[in-house]
Amino acid sequence: MLQEKIVDFLKKNEDYVSGEEISERLKISRQALWKHIQELKESGYDIIAVPHLGYKLNSLPDRLFEYEVSRGLNTQIIGKKIYYFESIASTMEQAMELGLKGAPEGAIVLAELQTRGKGRLGRSWFSPKHKGIYLSLILRPKILPSQASVLTLLAAVSVCEAIKNATGLEIQIKWPNDILINNKKLGGILTELSAEMDRVSFLVIGIGLNVNNEKKSLISGATSIKEIRKENSSRVVLLQELLRKIEDNYLLFQKKGAHPIIEKWREHGITIGKRVKVYCQKEHIEGEAVDIDNDGGLLVRKDSGVTEKVMAGDVMHCR
Amino acid sequence: MLQEKIVDFLKKNEDYVSGEEISERLKISRQALWKHIQELKESGYDIIAVPHLGYKLNSLPDRLFEYEVSRGLNTQIIGKKIYYFESIASTMEQAMELGLKGAPEGAIVLAELQTRGKGRLGRSWFSPKHKGIYLSLILRPKILPSQASVLTLLAAVSVCEAIKNATGLEIQIKWPNDILINNKKLGGILTELSAEMDRVSFLVIGIGLNVNNEKKSLISGATSIKEIRKENSSRVVLLQELLRKIEDNYLLFQKKGAHPIIEKWREHGITIGKRVKVYCQKEHIEGEAVDIDNDGGLLVRKDSGVTEKVMAGDVMHCR
Repeated sequence: MLQEKIVDFLKKNEDYVSGEEISERLKISRQALWKHIQELKESGYDIIAVPHLGYKLNSLPDRLFEYEVSRGLNTQIIGKKIYYFESIASTMEQAMELGLKGAPEGAIVLAELQTRGKGRLGRSWFSPKHKGIYLSLILRPKILPSQASVLTLLAAVSVCEAIKNATGLEIQIKWPNDILINNKKLGGILTELSAEMDRVSFLVIGIGLNVNNEKKSLISGATSIKEIRKENSSRVVLLQELLRKIEDNYLLFQKKGAHPIIEKWREHGITIGKRVKVYCQKEHIEGEAVDIDNDGGLLVRKDSGVTEKVMAGDVMHCR
Repeated sequence: MLQEKIVDFLKKNEDYVSGEEISERLKISRQALWKHIQELKESGYDIIAVPHLGYKLNSLPDRLFEYEVSRGLNTQIIGKKIYYFESIASTMEQAMELGLKGAPEGAIVLAELQTRGKGRLGRSWFSPKHKGIYLSLILRPKILPSQASVLTLLAAVSVCEAIKNATGLEIQIKWPNDILINNKKLGGILTELSAEMDRVSFLVIGIGLNVNNEKKSLISGATSIKEIRKENSSRVVLLQELLRKIEDNYLLFQKKGAHPIIEKWREHGITIGKRVKVYCQKEHIEGEAVDIDNDGGLLVRKDSGVTEKVMAGDVMHCR
């Protein structure tokens, strides 16, 4: 809290501020101030200290600290409660546990590094330190388990809108949850739910985005915002925009249902109209992806003329 | 472990056994033996000690201790791992947490008393001490979330079969999960799942059964096995039979799919052919319950002639 105030104070001043002035304003001793400044520097805040002149904030750390993310966020639900970890096994596991223990709707788990980042179906998600956004969000919508897929689409739409606003880049979605740019994978979305047959208790939506990853550290078929823009982006700014867009779309969903979310998804989705193979458990179906249904399912017209709906699976675009 | 051996030793002998003999056989001191006997007596084992004669086991406690339940159970999966609690908030909550932490398939949580026993949709389940069976079972079937309802039916069928075998009583099931006898509620089943869109991570099936509840402690519309049989039943025997039946039916499901489970359900179900009102979230539909589908859904033919499928809800039998 106090460190947050020191940072705020330094941010307001472009020039050096004397230790005496900060101490007086924040009502702490010079010694305590010095101690907090040291801790801030260790956290990555580049604070210059010059004798007789005082302190100056040279640059912010590239960290998703709770108070950096909260400052100016202005959401009502999403991200109002933030659990931040320098390193964690998996934000999904943590969020599922927090959800079971009653964590409020909109709570998010953030990590700078995941040691066992999760993708779909037990696959791993490569999560190098300070490079990406690794986020798990707890939602408690009053829906049936069968309606949960729409929230995956909602998250994908929000990612597209946030990246567009923060960087200008146009993003595509491959059904259901692959975030693509130039046909390379920029991010993924994973939805887990805890439910009774009659209702969802809570959902955890995991979002993994490659932001400032260097080309050499990306696996084949993957890309990052840095690789496209040739410069680092502020992860804090992007994350804040993402949380705002999720909130906008979630409120829209609660007010008007799945329809407007599906409409938005169609604008960004690149699967419709393509010939696809969808692998689901041991089976696969092949045909033309004709549309997505109002529950988020993909409608595939097979060569026999029969249209089938798939709710989840791996999609291969054939041509 | 040692206490289990002492009990086993006493069980094998109908007459008194000298402390000397037990000490020698189990390789413990007379003093240690005496201490263990005291603890067993405190747990409810009625052990008579007569100077110069030794010890005799007069009666077993009415407790679902792990080693009482395990002894002679002979299952391969179900109940191989038992978490026993004298008192717990909710076996469901505990099992969900254990599931997240990787507890193995077939693990069960048992409690003598639940202080916040859960029913469907946040309702409570009255769980007085030592009277009922309060059980939550962890399963990890390789299925889609939409296929989970069948496991609720599987549990209901297993309850019917187990009660029939252990007590001779004929039980009915009201779709999807009410266990009835003489139109009064004997038990309930609650299924919770933790899942991705593509697959179930694990299921927790909760079973609450009124066994030795006195009439005066039952709420209106409820009954117990004791109320019917006018005598106490061994909860251990009933529980063991239940675990065996769940295993039989689960192996059947894994081998042959939902069909044979649904077939068995039809034998015990009393909803088919009845006029019903099904309340599901804010809506309800009314009509004749014509059948259950292979995914466990109830098919209701409305007066308009249109048949709808409901996957979950509260059913009222109208006549």
